[in-house]
Amino acid sequence: MTSRSIVTAAGTSGARGRSASRTPGHLQKPGSTVVLERDGDAEVKRTLLPGGLRVITEHVPGVRSASIGIWVAVGSRDEPLSVAGAAHYLEHLLFKGTARRTAAQIAEEIDAVGGELNAFTAKEHTCYYAHVLDEDLPLAIDLVSDVVFDAVCAESDVETERGVVLEEIAMRDDDPEDLLHDAFCTALMSDHPLGRPVLGSEQSITAMTRSALNGFYRRRYTMPRMVLAVAGNVSHRGVLTLVRKALRDRLTGDRAPLAPRTGRARLGASPRLVLHTDDTEQAHMMLGVRAIDRHDDRRFTLSVLNAALGGGMSSRLFQEVRERRGLAYQVYSSVAAYADTGHLSIYTGCQPDRLGEVAGVVREVLREVARDGFTDAEVARAKGSLRGGLVLGLEDTSSRMSRIGKGELAYGDYLTVEQTLERFAAVTPEDVANLARELLARPLAAAVVGPYAHTDDVPVQLHEVSK
Amino acid sequence: MTSRSIVTAAGTSGARGRSASRTPGHLQKPGSTVVLERDGDAEVKRTLLPGGLRVITEHVPGVRSASIGIWVAVGSRDEPLSVAGAAHYLEHLLFKGTARRTAAQIAEEIDAVGGELNAFTAKEHTCYYAHVLDEDLPLAIDLVSDVVFDAVCAESDVETERGVVLEEIAMRDDDPEDLLHDAFCTALMSDHPLGRPVLGSEQSITAMTRSALNGFYRRRYTMPRMVLAVAGNVSHRGVLTLVRKALRDRLTGDRAPLAPRTGRARLGASPRLVLHTDDTEQAHMMLGVRAIDRHDDRRFTLSVLNAALGGGMSSRLFQEVRERRGLAYQVYSSVAAYADTGHLSIYTGCQPDRLGEVAGVVREVLREVARDGFTDAEVARAKGSLRGGLVLGLEDTSSRMSRIGKGELAYGDYLTVEQTLERFAAVTPEDVANLARELLARPLAAAVVGPYAHTDDVPVQLHEVSK
Repeated sequence: MTSRSIVTAAGTSGARGRSASRTPGHLQKPGSTVVLERDGDAEVKRTLLPGGLRVITEHVPGVRSASIGIWVAVGSRDEPLSVAGAAHYLEHLLFKGTARRTAAQIAEEIDAVGGELNAFTAKEHTCYYAHVLDEDLPLAIDLVSDVVFDAVCAESDVETERGVVLEEIAMRDDDPEDLLHDAFCTALMSDHPLGRPVLGSEQSITAMTRSALNGFYRRRYTMPRMVLAVAGNVSHRGVLTLVRKALRDRLTGDRAPLAPRTGRARLGASPRLVLHTDDTEQAHMMLGVRAIDRHDDRRFTLSVLNAALGGGMSSRLFQEVRERRGLAYQVYSSVAAYADTGHLSIYTGCQPDRLGEVAGVVREVLREVARDGFTDAEVARAKGSLRGGLVLGLEDTSSRMSRIGKGELAYGDYLTVEQTLERFAAVTPEDVANLARELLARPLAAAVVGPYAHTDDVPVQLHEVSK
Repeated sequence: MTSRSIVTAAGTSGARGRSASRTPGHLQKPGSTVVLERDGDAEVKRTLLPGGLRVITEHVPGVRSASIGIWVAVGSRDEPLSVAGAAHYLEHLLFKGTARRTAAQIAEEIDAVGGELNAFTAKEHTCYYAHVLDEDLPLAIDLVSDVVFDAVCAESDVETERGVVLEEIAMRDDDPEDLLHDAFCTALMSDHPLGRPVLGSEQSITAMTRSALNGFYRRRYTMPRMVLAVAGNVSHRGVLTLVRKALRDRLTGDRAPLAPRTGRARLGASPRLVLHTDDTEQAHMMLGVRAIDRHDDRRFTLSVLNAALGGGMSSRLFQEVRERRGLAYQVYSSVAAYADTGHLSIYTGCQPDRLGEVAGVVREVLREVARDGFTDAEVARAKGSLRGGLVLGLEDTSSRMSRIGKGELAYGDYLTVEQTLERFAAVTPEDVANLARELLARPLAAAVVGPYAHTDDVPVQLHEVSK
């Protein structure tokens, strides 16, 4: 098909490392292209193609590879309870064959060039991606598009893949940290869809039909819900040509992309303790509080708080639990931000007879932070840590592709790396202390995997740390 | 101290992507510098400093980061049985404080710049490394050198860290795949030091003394056993200046580096089955044969064999076990190459009642490969896969640092990426078939973690696949 004319909505000269257009992707003019960033040779551009597909690319100077991902705004939270795990099951199924390729052919084509082709399903999105040498980008775009748009979903493949998904659930059950993470989400968000495991349950997977999966596929995998992102040694124009070739007559119609999800999750029941009794060597514990959603401007403050609390070797938790007392090998905090809620949590694993002591130390750290915040030196270090980590984390084309693709899906609005660094730099110790005080006054949720028969045997206190 | 004059042993014009000098590091002239590769802006150089320290650097054009690692030719195989786990325990201990820095200061300095500072211990080497923004390289070289050469090993830190190492052992015990790997090495190599876990045992760690650890440190951590490797946006001359500043008066004496270890391991007892009874959801199985050492020229052939057998999605094992039958989520083969022996192994995990079927399918695949080798298409694909994987795997400075540092320790001799690709390209289907026939006629070893009370209950056959 003939391409629409490409309109460059922003001038070619822009501030170094600043975004040149702030038009969100879902409000972009159909057929237009905007420059989101231009910084020397580096460039980020976005085009809205007919059919409602957003294509966003980053030209990364000096690399020999390219990564392409199709991000779909569909995840496990979109599943009715009766088909829990459908999004992930479907992700497996799409690789089992398309109108043009068998599963073996898909595998052979990517292996032949030494590329990586894979996918992952999360609570709010699913991503299909490939990482290849730049010369193999045409193949990668064709393969990923084929899988996402043209899978067959044959009945026999649904049966074969059911076994694989059940094995993946069993494998998760044998990994205490993975199991714990799922249990923690249940402890914190109860029966809200965000509280359920992405994998579904043995029951829901066993009962899943081809018709349910295919229906989910046909209804949910529409272009307005998708972003196609490419980063590496690529040109925006070249990528558009390849995408048009791969998708041909699918690129029709004036459909607007879906706006990012917003709102406020109705989480219902209070946080609680969830125990998985298991004869493990360590007791594995995760505890935390409901926090802020990804649209909350304080997310930069929360990142600083998280880094100072349990992000690195010099963080409070690492120093108190591991360095001073030798109580654990692993102890860290982490943050999750969904469209309408989020959480701040702490993980650690230790000998079961020490869990009471470890939980006590963790509570004491949280109590101090809730009361006094962090020192100026700690906040400065946390900010330095985020700055270095962000830049070092963007060295490969896969992480650059994820930044632009996931960012587009989640925010629409584009932030340059420089702008993100400025937001971190602007966070003050007072901001951190205020947020810590607010969040740590909330009820705690906890999950434990370990050799305890009843929740009463678990030596972890759930009342707020400020009390 | 004053630096010796730098002699460039090779001319400045060299073949593109070819090594310009083939002098092994341990035979290099003291004080001299050789150019190992020059390809456009990229350059690999090695200097032998007084004291016997080899410094090898790679200038990577277009990146903003740098990675530094000190590779020590000491690992768990160098431990007497009575101090099993000493190399790894020591690796922990070195971060607990130096003459100039407390453990907290070490952590604070690296966190402040958002860098990564860490270490790992293997059977034949230990590596201390940092990954930082290029502007922070002076700090990174100073920190890593300080930790490796000037740690205090205080009695109280030995006690605190004992708890951490015991937690790490407990964590390994809760991870079926990690536990399985250790069990497989025992099944294959019995009581040879290579058959023992790097972590040591609960008993050996509990009994470890400060004097044993410090003695191990003083005797083993000598410059002739070390390679300091740096890759990224760096110059060789600049790195040498930083290393001289960090190590000062330690850089004295005309000591020659140790030649890489060679020989033939005396493995003694025959391979067998090792079972860890555990109430896991999946039965986890690893089985394999003794293979070739890293100095064996057929290592390139073995890589092709491994890729075709179980390296990617299109490999025989993945297709037969997962794609056709849906029997497992994970199934892959892997290769280990030590100085004087090695192994080829297969991992999979499945429902315990299907283990017999899975093991049967794996045996049948191995039998066919031993008899017929692979098709030309499979070998071509495996070679393509290795080519792409090698190049894509060298995108970040950490992997480039590892390539030159570990390579120098293991081989002395330097191979450019281009030369490695040529070696893969030269492998023929006949080479692969011959090696498969030879290796797969050897006795199998197997390890299983799963809900079986006795080895007799495990449905895995150990007789050679060719029978």
